Amino acid sequence: MERITPRTLSGFMELLPQKQAKLEKMMSVLRDTYSLYGFAPLDTPAIEDAKILLAKGGGETEKQIYRFQKGDSDLALRFDLTVPLAKYVALHYNDLAFPFRRYQISKVYRGERAQRGRFREFYQADIDIIGDGKLDVLNEAEIPAIIYQVFRGFGLTRFQIRVNNRKILNGFYAMLGLTEQSGEIMRTVDKLDKIGAEKVSKLLTENCGLTDEQAGEILRFIAISGTNSQVLSALEGYLGKNEMFDQGVTELRQVTDNLAAFGVPEANFAVDLTIARGLDYYTGTVYETTLLDHPEIGSVCSGGRYDNLAGYYTDKMLPGVGISIGLTRLFYVLDEQGLLNPQLPSAPADALVLPMTDDPAPAIALAQSLRSAGVRVQLYAEKKKFKQKMSYADKLAVPYAVLLGEDEIAEGVCSVKNMTTGEQIKLPADQAAQHILSGLAATGPIILE
Amino acid sequence: MERITPRTLSGFMELLPQKQAKLEKMMSVLRDTYSLYGFAPLDTPAIEDAKILLAKGGGETEKQIYRFQKGDSDLALRFDLTVPLAKYVALHYNDLAFPFRRYQISKVYRGERAQRGRFREFYQADIDIIGDGKLDVLNEAEIPAIIYQVFRGFGLTRFQIRVNNRKILNGFYAMLGLTEQSGEIMRTVDKLDKIGAEKVSKLLTENCGLTDEQAGEILRFIAISGTNSQVLSALEGYLGKNEMFDQGVTELRQVTDNLAAFGVPEANFAVDLTIARGLDYYTGTVYETTLLDHPEIGSVCSGGRYDNLAGYYTDKMLPGVGISIGLTRLFYVLDEQGLLNPQLPSAPADALVLPMTDDPAPAIALAQSLRSAGVRVQLYAEKKKFKQKMSYADKLAVPYAVLLGEDEIAEGVCSVKNMTTGEQIKLPADQAAQHILSGLAATGPIILE
Repeated sequence: MERITPRTLSGFMELLPQKQAKLEKMMSVLRDTYSLYGFAPLDTPAIEDAKILLAKGGGETEKQIYRFQKGDSDLALRFDLTVPLAKYVALHYNDLAFPFRRYQISKVYRGERAQRGRFREFYQADIDIIGDGKLDVLNEAEIPAIIYQVFRGFGLTRFQIRVNNRKILNGFYAMLGLTEQSGEIMRTVDKLDKIGAEKVSKLLTENCGLTDEQAGEILRFIAISGTNSQVLSALEGYLGKNEMFDQGVTELRQVTDNLAAFGVPEANFAVDLTIARGLDYYTGTVYETTLLDHPEIGSVCSGGRYDNLAGYYTDKMLPGVGISIGLTRLFYVLDEQGLLNPQLPSAPADALVLPMTDDPAPAIALAQSLRSAGVRVQLYAEKKKFKQKMSYADKLAVPYAVLLGEDEIAEGVCSVKNMTTGEQIKLPADQAAQHILSGLAATGPIILE
Repeated sequence: MERITPRTLSGFMELLPQKQAKLEKMMSVLRDTYSLYGFAPLDTPAIEDAKILLAKGGGETEKQIYRFQKGDSDLALRFDLTVPLAKYVALHYNDLAFPFRRYQISKVYRGERAQRGRFREFYQADIDIIGDGKLDVLNEAEIPAIIYQVFRGFGLTRFQIRVNNRKILNGFYAMLGLTEQSGEIMRTVDKLDKIGAEKVSKLLTENCGLTDEQAGEILRFIAISGTNSQVLSALEGYLGKNEMFDQGVTELRQVTDNLAAFGVPEANFAVDLTIARGLDYYTGTVYETTLLDHPEIGSVCSGGRYDNLAGYYTDKMLPGVGISIGLTRLFYVLDEQGLLNPQLPSAPADALVLPMTDDPAPAIALAQSLRSAGVRVQLYAEKKKFKQKMSYADKLAVPYAVLLGEDEIAEGVCSVKNMTTGEQIKLPADQAAQHILSGLAATGPIILE
């Protein structure tokens, strides 16, 4: 047989089982948390009509998209989960109840230049709340609670949800007579973290055509900082000059005022006037989330309020608010930095049942009994020496080995060996299950700080 | 803005939220059951090097595969989960512990002719156990237990796991001097269910070049039926003539002998000598699963033992056993036949919290309190009339609405309305959570019989 050297394409993440188990745990936190907030799981095709995915067009997207013919169909792989959502809501508008809350944790595809830590296939974990014509700002206030619970679920405490409102920025630029340039200004100001105030100022005057005074005003404005109430107080000083600005401040207040009721601690939340999000798409509250001890990772969960989800597909006005987590990239970076908890159980089974008799029936019955109590059991079926069996248990990092020989059968027990401590005790099957399950209870955080 | 009419490609399943919830429940049964048997979740890229996916080649596969260029890469979408598994095991051989047990529930792609009920993107839910050089037959005996638990988990009792062993068939054909033609004979005999004995006999003589006597022998052999022990007794009559045949009977006995220990009732299991599975790939035990009241659906879970998983990629001999469920097709057929339980809760939330005061803070705090007790809560944030709020709750099919007005706040309670019975009671938040959770407990089967 002619052999082909196996390989996985570069830019495509393929994990070994123990790492995969950790990613699955993160996904499980995401699914559980999103569900707890009443989001419906959604699953759209990975392939869509290319014309539909590219309705908005745009340079980078068109270059990166995987697009191909099959028969006479012009097809493409989705490059995000927002465009398929827009299509879905427009297409199924009459069958959906609004507000429509959905989550989707799916792979998306971008043929980016191959580069360490850049992925061509990666998971996004998105939630969106879509209204029909209107959507109350209270939905925007709920988003930080969801972000908070997700990252707490990952085991983290040292993170910060940074929030701003595009109406404040747009209103402020309007006060300065810079409405035309507002998009460009925001994209420039967005670079503040990366390039610093001086360079931003230079870009604002040289590229956006602002006067030194205007650039100075903007930099002073976005430099407003302090506690949430300090920032909000400072914003009051600008009230009454521009309606959109005032509206933005009111919305920002509604978001911050309800944080306590939503159980989000002040320490995990900050009003940050430098947050703009590059996309023109956002029209109200915008979110970024940073790991306080790892600012170099950048935002790990971003999103915002938009006014018109599906304008390319329908004349219905569908405002919404949503956030997205770039799960594959986040996982990759956490792993690179050694922040995935090595203590986290990641074996495919809680217990490895080792038959020590010729007749496998008693060991089978034991395995089934443990499983029916909820223990994840692998029945070790190979005829190997005891030492090899134990070495397999070690390699799997299975927390418990359960031995069943003639002695145990005669006594009506099994020997349960804790693979970490080496402790071994004899117990009847039902007690063995409880012993194992209680030993598994404390798993610790998924991500370390 | 120029509008594009939204559509989803034909042959691609895209479900409304309530149906999606049912599919998710089936996936959850699969994940939980596979995990209980110690299978590790695996996730491989949807895109692979086309040369790797097509290593085996073959007509239908090459025609149906989605293959495309990106830059100078020759890429393709996976058409099953077995080829990516073979690549994975060959590539990561040194990092895996054998036997390696993995499950994968992922989408695969086949550009089939568009046809009602045929999908171009569909989920397969696979498990495989891969050995390094050897793999004990006890693994083959465990597979029916897993199939049994999956279909019981779906809520079914009227299904049958049908099992045969390719060594018995190959050995029997060898007795007749028909080793050369055995592949062709099996593919012909596989059609028995569909075309009947007479036509199979005709094909055997006309296409496979058998004598009438040989065809008769084969038809008599595969007509052996009865209880498992009757079939096994009948097979004893052929023992001692061919080593492979004898080996097959021994293996079949090992599978059937352990059924009771594995907790698989006789009613859900049958030795069936007509089962051959078309693929040459299988070398030992083979499985099919049928819904007894819906034979027209065909096999809903099939697989078998193979001796060499990854011969195209490695010189390591990697025997294994696996099964696959074509989840998308199964779901489609069940839905078409009205067999998905309409009573199954499929709302995205267990409770819809309706704030009835201007200040949303008390309702937010209530929603968070219910969530922390494990109730999936949607906080209804829109300012609508009461009637519209209740009509939204109805449309979502949410089981409970929770109302919080000034009166309730003053009393320290909330009003919990059962949306099915209309019953409404006032309870403090913690008791409300328990009331809702216990009301949800009985969900019934996913699939009806």
